[in-house]
Amino acid sequence: MTLRFTKMHGLGNDFVVIDAIRQDVALSGADVRRIADRRFGVGCDQVLLAAPATQPGMDFRYRIFNADGGEVEQCGNGVRCLARFLLEEGLTTRDRLTIETLGGPTEIAIEADGQVTVNMGPPRLEPTEIPFTASPRATTYELDVNGETLTIGAVSMGNPHAVTVVPDVDTAPVDRLGPVVERHGAFPARVNAGFMQVVDPEHVRLRVYERGAGETLACGTGACAAVVAGRLRGLLAETVAVDLPGGRLAIRWAGEGEPVWMTGPATTVFQGRIPLSPDDDAPGQVR
Amino acid sequence: MTLRFTKMHGLGNDFVVIDAIRQDVALSGADVRRIADRRFGVGCDQVLLAAPATQPGMDFRYRIFNADGGEVEQCGNGVRCLARFLLEEGLTTRDRLTIETLGGPTEIAIEADGQVTVNMGPPRLEPTEIPFTASPRATTYELDVNGETLTIGAVSMGNPHAVTVVPDVDTAPVDRLGPVVERHGAFPARVNAGFMQVVDPEHVRLRVYERGAGETLACGTGACAAVVAGRLRGLLAETVAVDLPGGRLAIRWAGEGEPVWMTGPATTVFQGRIPLSPDDDAPGQVR
Repeated sequence: MTLRFTKMHGLGNDFVVIDAIRQDVALSGADVRRIADRRFGVGCDQVLLAAPATQPGMDFRYRIFNADGGEVEQCGNGVRCLARFLLEEGLTTRDRLTIETLGGPTEIAIEADGQVTVNMGPPRLEPTEIPFTASPRATTYELDVNGETLTIGAVSMGNPHAVTVVPDVDTAPVDRLGPVVERHGAFPARVNAGFMQVVDPEHVRLRVYERGAGETLACGTGACAAVVAGRLRGLLAETVAVDLPGGRLAIRWAGEGEPVWMTGPATTVFQGRIPLSPDDDAPGQVR
Repeated sequence: MTLRFTKMHGLGNDFVVIDAIRQDVALSGADVRRIADRRFGVGCDQVLLAAPATQPGMDFRYRIFNADGGEVEQCGNGVRCLARFLLEEGLTTRDRLTIETLGGPTEIAIEADGQVTVNMGPPRLEPTEIPFTASPRATTYELDVNGETLTIGAVSMGNPHAVTVVPDVDTAPVDRLGPVVERHGAFPARVNAGFMQVVDPEHVRLRVYERGAGETLACGTGACAAVVAGRLRGLLAETVAVDLPGGRLAIRWAGEGEPVWMTGPATTVFQGRIPLSPDDDAPGQVR
């Protein structure tokens, strides 16, 4: 079978996006690994499928496969690309969509300037929900890291984040302390380590050491968590421009109990067609 | 302009191959860098152009651009892909071609099994031609490397190679000694460092630490140089299977004064179309 695909990126987080509505797509784990391989395939961080909805009230179904072939719940940079893909491919003409994901329904809006806004859900702040072995819940916590004391905010956006305010992200100890924070014993599921510089209440600069991946160009949930942590400390306005190494996101959070809204770009790079071996289709199909 | 391209690889050395015969192609250095970028473009080691010949007796012109936008003389893995591309695209029906390159005419043959054979030219063995500050020319040289003595063969295949015979490539000190050999003072233009295990006279295993690039999956000129060095030491037959980390090449060398022939695979991965910004076309055109 020959598969049509579109290569896209959101702030450098890159995707092979596949129309599984007008194409009959059956990808094995081996197919996903092959597509994601940057030398022997197309190359991407994740493979995204736009599929017909299976639940009432949902416009489309969005599936996300990591480069290792495993299916995951959500990807904030990916869902922006998916929304633009649906529009550019003529699969929808609407600018407000509700998308079915493994992580639950996701609301997305395509803005007049082509950027995409995503409802990232409300942050979870109770230590047991993060998970984080601190008690009671507080705005900041003191974390002992190799004998140094870091003052962190702790936030879950579906995945755990520890956010530290630093004077300058360019000189922040991301490489040195990121891996130590990631594996700190107080975070039993490990943690993403964010280092945020507050330029002014409506503008921060952020670098994130991602759990299992190291520093990345643009961690969407990290941007949400950083703004929540900064808002709770009284440092930030309701809408904040977050400059990541890959580019800018706008994050809006009205406050406790409210969802976090993330707005950012989605870019189409090229269209392609790749033949997939019939042998690859046999075992472990993910339809 | 929207550019049609084909993504190919030769033993994992990967290329974006562009038909500049049926397409009017004007690529700026910025276009090449964008195409080669693995997140913001298509992604490849080199961009290859199949263009009309400009010299008498030549079938096609082959141009090679590194990911940094600079044009280079030759790429052995690339020319195999170019030959298959010409055949698959219907640009030729012949299985013997003479290709115009910056490095001079290159003879290629497409084999019945789809592999491609390339005339890599005769090796140069005089130290001054390599360049290598040893005298007189010898089959092996003793090289002092951080207090250890390595016994090397020295060969130029257009680029300089120092080849060491080791008992087992899996445990060879490629990471530890490769960078030291590369910058050894006896090689004024630096050197590619090959570590070869002789399995039998018709079969070797090879790892190459490439000048400026580190260890690579499949260094074509390194395979040629290793077989020449091994033949001169009386260890190898005329045709030798060379197993590299990326796969197998067959190298044939009849002996002094004769060219080295390299046979190996070329694989088409996918077809694509990428829009290039008209702004990119203006400065520094390479037509």
